[in-house]
Amino acid sequence: PAAAQEFDAAGQSASAMAYPQLFASEMALAEEFVNGMIAAGITVPVPADPGGGYTHEQHKRNYRAMYLAGHLYQLTGEERYLAFVRDMLLEYADLYPTLGDHPARANQNVGRLFWQVLNDAMWMVHAVQAYETVRDDLDTADRQRIDDDVFRRAAEFLSVDSEATFNLIHNHATWATAGVGMAGYVLGDDDLVHRALYGSAGDGEAGFVRQTELLFSPDGYYTEGPYYQRFAMLPFMVFAGAIQRNDPALRIFEHRGGILVKALNATIQLTYDGYFFPFNDAIRDKSLNTAELYEGVAIGYSVTRDPALLDIARQQGRTVITPAGLEMSRALAADEAEPFQFRSMLFSDGPDGDQGAVAVMRSGQGPMHMAMVAKNASQGMGHGHFDKLSWQLYDRGNEIVRDYGAARFLNIEAKEGGRYLPENETWAKQTIAHNALVVNEQSHFYGVRDLADTAWPTQHYFNVEDGFQVSAAGIDSAYPNEGVSMTRVLAMVDIEGLSQPLALDVLRAQGTSEVQFDLPLHYSGHIMRLGFDPVRNIAGRPVLGADNGYQHIWVDGSATPAPDQGFMTWLLDGRFYTYRFVPSAGMEVILGESGANDPDFNLRREPLVIQRVSGTDSASFVSVLESHGLYDGATEQTIGSNSQIASLHHVRSHGYDLVFIETLAGQEVVVAISWDNDPAAQHSVTIEGREINWRGYAARVPLGGGDDT
Amino acid sequence: PAAAQEFDAAGQSASAMAYPQLFASEMALAEEFVNGMIAAGITVPVPADPGGGYTHEQHKRNYRAMYLAGHLYQLTGEERYLAFVRDMLLEYADLYPTLGDHPARANQNVGRLFWQVLNDAMWMVHAVQAYETVRDDLDTADRQRIDDDVFRRAAEFLSVDSEATFNLIHNHATWATAGVGMAGYVLGDDDLVHRALYGSAGDGEAGFVRQTELLFSPDGYYTEGPYYQRFAMLPFMVFAGAIQRNDPALRIFEHRGGILVKALNATIQLTYDGYFFPFNDAIRDKSLNTAELYEGVAIGYSVTRDPALLDIARQQGRTVITPAGLEMSRALAADEAEPFQFRSMLFSDGPDGDQGAVAVMRSGQGPMHMAMVAKNASQGMGHGHFDKLSWQLYDRGNEIVRDYGAARFLNIEAKEGGRYLPENETWAKQTIAHNALVVNEQSHFYGVRDLADTAWPTQHYFNVEDGFQVSAAGIDSAYPNEGVSMTRVLAMVDIEGLSQPLALDVLRAQGTSEVQFDLPLHYSGHIMRLGFDPVRNIAGRPVLGADNGYQHIWVDGSATPAPDQGFMTWLLDGRFYTYRFVPSAGMEVILGESGANDPDFNLRREPLVIQRVSGTDSASFVSVLESHGLYDGATEQTIGSNSQIASLHHVRSHGYDLVFIETLAGQEVVVAISWDNDPAAQHSVTIEGREINWRGYAARVPLGGGDDT
Ligand SMILES: [Zn+2]
Ligand SMILES: [Zn+2]
Repeated sequence: PAAAQEFDAAGQSASAMAYPQLFASEMALAEEFVNGMIAAGITVPVPADPGGGYTHEQHKRNYRAMYLAGHLYQLTGEERYLAFVRDMLLEYADLYPTLGDHPARANQNVGRLFWQVLNDAMWMVHAVQAYETVRDDLDTADRQRIDDDVFRRAAEFLSVDSEATFNLIHNHATWATAGVGMAGYVLGDDDLVHRALYGSAGDGEAGFVRQTELLFSPDGYYTEGPYYQRFAMLPFMVFAGAIQRNDPALRIFEHRGGILVKALNATIQLTYDGYFFPFNDAIRDKSLNTAELYEGVAIGYSVTRDPALLDIARQQGRTVITPAGLEMSRALAADEAEPFQFRSMLFSDGPDGDQGAVAVMRSGQGPMHMAMVAKNASQGMGHGHFDKLSWQLYDRGNEIVRDYGAARFLNIEAKEGGRYLPENETWAKQTIAHNALVVNEQSHFYGVRDLADTAWPTQHYFNVEDGFQVSAAGIDSAYPNEGVSMTRVLAMVDIEGLSQPLALDVLRAQGTSEVQFDLPLHYSGHIMRLGFDPVRNIAGRPVLGADNGYQHIWVDGSATPAPDQGFMTWLLDGRFYTYRFVPSAGMEVILGESGANDPDFNLRREPLVIQRVSGTDSASFVSVLESHGLYDGATEQTIGSNSQIASLHHVRSHGYDLVFIETLAGQEVVVAISWDNDPAAQHSVTIEGREINWRGYAARVPLGGGDDT
Repeated sequence: PAAAQEFDAAGQSASAMAYPQLFASEMALAEEFVNGMIAAGITVPVPADPGGGYTHEQHKRNYRAMYLAGHLYQLTGEERYLAFVRDMLLEYADLYPTLGDHPARANQNVGRLFWQVLNDAMWMVHAVQAYETVRDDLDTADRQRIDDDVFRRAAEFLSVDSEATFNLIHNHATWATAGVGMAGYVLGDDDLVHRALYGSAGDGEAGFVRQTELLFSPDGYYTEGPYYQRFAMLPFMVFAGAIQRNDPALRIFEHRGGILVKALNATIQLTYDGYFFPFNDAIRDKSLNTAELYEGVAIGYSVTRDPALLDIARQQGRTVITPAGLEMSRALAADEAEPFQFRSMLFSDGPDGDQGAVAVMRSGQGPMHMAMVAKNASQGMGHGHFDKLSWQLYDRGNEIVRDYGAARFLNIEAKEGGRYLPENETWAKQTIAHNALVVNEQSHFYGVRDLADTAWPTQHYFNVEDGFQVSAAGIDSAYPNEGVSMTRVLAMVDIEGLSQPLALDVLRAQGTSEVQFDLPLHYSGHIMRLGFDPVRNIAGRPVLGADNGYQHIWVDGSATPAPDQGFMTWLLDGRFYTYRFVPSAGMEVILGESGANDPDFNLRREPLVIQRVSGTDSASFVSVLESHGLYDGATEQTIGSNSQIASLHHVRSHGYDLVFIETLAGQEVVVAISWDNDPAAQHSVTIEGREINWRGYAARVPLGGGDDT
């Protein structure tokens, strides 16, 4: 028999003061929901509808209700919860043997209860946890029927009939193996367990264990990105918890250096103000406040006793009514939480950690801190975006340099039934929709996923020190036809006299023939000031291009800035931001907005600025983004609405790149890049009579000046 | 000598536990600011700069610092606060006699210390309060110098040299009379007091008392609108407080039925979630959290002891360090607050209450409640907008049907020095920028203020009852050349089965010749669904018109909806809104966005929809706005994304207007309008065999249907 999770203090109701507040309120929520379901009567409809439809939603409600009722039974011993789970499963025992392929099949991976096998696996993961809580208390006949006609059949369907999905190295397979493996534990069926752990062939080339080895990088990064990582964490953590109880000798949580706990931590780190960095096809409103992470944090805490996870639980304000959730709630109530530290970190991508990386640099703590994110990761499978070396900036609770995320309105029938919108392909995935370099108005890898899957950036350098954080990465395979290699340094640079670090961006591109380079910046805010004087399209608004996302850009104007005109200031949420760039000779600047060629109003309308250099085989783009000042309409106070930077210069000399930043107060800093990864190597160059010395790949060299030197 | 406000427990520092928390923290803020000013040393520069410039800001800081230091002296008895006020006033005594007209004069009303006399009056109001706290403790020589060379001269300047401003019936004159009158009390100069109370001529045709009679309507509405009302309340309340202490026999707070307290309450009522309805040239981020209202609420409480004002103070979280502020803070600490009730109310406009009105209808309480606002007021002087019969809707903390407010970025130098932008005239003031009827693409009164000043809407009806709130108003003078009269009924209508009332809008217009009628709706949100199929401008975006605001509208598309196609649904902040209208024959619907012909990016880009009827001398526009459903990306839950309304019909019969609303569940309600203000009059009409009976101007008549009838 399965080693069920067991409460150390069962038989108490939610109102009993013995439960800590967080757990009690979670129990009350569960009781309210389950009691409503009991009152409504059990409804197990014959599968008919696709996602969002009635039967789909009913079967989802059912597994959620069984899962909660089972745990309430464990907690309270109340017979009616047992009866609810049993009676519902008996209904499923009637239904399940009658099912073939779901009538609303959408693709290869057809389910039985649902239109796709993924949902069947999710049903299984929840239902089998419910069954575990009641099975020992059922009479033999009921137990036999449910064993045979529900769980054995469902396990057979998931692992044999749907073998192709089951043996994938993919999160859909994680759900399937978790469901089948936990059914194996509950039914005492070692064959199911073995299949789940090591794949159908039993050789460990597939199955759950292999998934933990291949789906995460050594740093715990999941290649599809944080939005999908969140979703994948539930079956990983729940099944691992079951393995730990039933097969403790496997030491699943220690496997691969504790990869599952690393992955949980990475999931949490890949957020700003609780919201996941919206890489790839991400729904932007997804935050740590999500059912998958209530479960993940509770199990993670039960494994690690990491008091920082209690801080996350406190921010979530939610938990799960499992023994792990209770244990965690008690620790939280006992005031054992310690602040979770959101840190500057590098997350390698790929099973061996050599398929690029995501670099996160942070300055400050708390909801107002500044964070800079470099997306140097690999394509991330079918939901991946063509966004190599793209970046984002967050400040004061807002996303300042944006990633569009997915073009999708979940479950809104009028928006293509809630599925991905056509503009997800034509805009959201395209390179120009990102803060990434575009060559000849084509997306990276020409928008071909198969090509994109074969290559990724190289993270050259990552370093965090006081006053200077830096990430450098490159890729030479994004435009094979044009032979373009590109390298990008993104850094957070403290400047004496400025309240926050500057976000520095140095991007170099070299091709084998003359091309057009476009470097877009997708920003948030209302333009306050332009350093250049654009020709404006004020009485008719044309479209920038024909394809690859360009067809979605309205052109507001363009300019060819003089050297000292390369800046623009915008206002967002009471803060000013100045984007300052070095205009190379002939560089055109285009001001635009998303939303053209959008017949169904599917796109958000958001501004962007493009630096364009044409007819050249190489280009350097050097820019800084400065957060400054304050606009408070309530008190009618405006301070620092103008940039504090006097000048930005870029010098390339002896293979080095040097960026000179001078403030109005006269402080001068140079960021020197050697592109040489030897940390001990000493570099020196003389620019306009000034000798600049530094060590290693990149350095911040203060040149002094200003009032206080 | 003046009857100064006196603390009943002086000599305590901010840290003393004797002060209630709100007051203590306010004192700490004041100490921090004043100590900083003391440490920086007294700086009284020769006036040079206009608004926002250095000398302007320094003189503002000075009067604020003196005001706070004086009250800190009262509270703590600390000599250094006295010294600071004295020494600064002595500096002003050196400066003031040397001053002539300010060099940066902007208009007729030039100041001495500031570029406009208004700022000099504000300086006076604050400085004289500071002086009052220290004057008795000064030696004779200092007192004499400050009396003569500062306050007598400043009073002379404000009341004699600037007599034209002083005798206006205008808030600028309120500041001036308040400053001069309080100086009179402090200096013991009855002549100054009399001049302030009754005007230069002393006949009461001007002066403060007359201002209380003419600047507010009998309901306490200030004709320029809530944004300006907030600003005007400070001198009204502060000077009235001084009058009450020095001339209690005047019973100033009882004058005109307690108009000042009514005005304070009106100021608070004219908000949603603390933000003022942004009528006229309003800065949208102005809320109850503003210095003027900290002062106003404290004085209001000291006069009324109204426990609901304590609730406002609690929401503000701020107060003033005056005796009134202390008294109020104590009552708050003693838990005497009662909830401030935001209510459905009619606020008449004009000194006699017969120049139109503002109607506010609310459903529910708290930050998520729904509020509908009908702007049927008069022009409101120079900052008024051409927005007769316009309306707004708020729901769930958001402005759903919008008023643009002013086109201005306060104190942002790059935006025209922080002054009103050109687009304030060309867009924000124009009728098409409002939810108001436009004839022949011209603004009301052809955009001529002098014409607008002579006429106003008539509020025909206002009634609040369970399930039905209604406002009706009309105006026949907005388009004298076309002889157009228009009447608008705005109502909140409960419908069985819907979670919130519908916002109903019935607008009838009749002219003397064929014209074009445009009815815009400025909404907030992202389009989810259109009932009609527009011809879309997706590859080039034209401009709607040439002038009167039309030049600022990009056209996204247009359609001629069939009778059942008149609706659109948008999503805002997790809630769906469906705007449903009755398309009359040939009605064109135009979808657009603000932002065209905006060379300096001064405008916000916000969507609007226009119902257009052409070549007719009359038109009826009937629409409902429905708040429904829920979109929660975090939990991936979407419910009720489609409107619950099955149909909307309008029937005109025997001079009656009837609006039939039927829900998908089959519930039917008719809103019947007789246009007859006799509440006892019985009306009856038979439509499609159904007899509909009601009494009075307008009624909600349930016709039943649906599941539960
Ligand atoms: Zn993306
Ligand atoms: Zn307006």
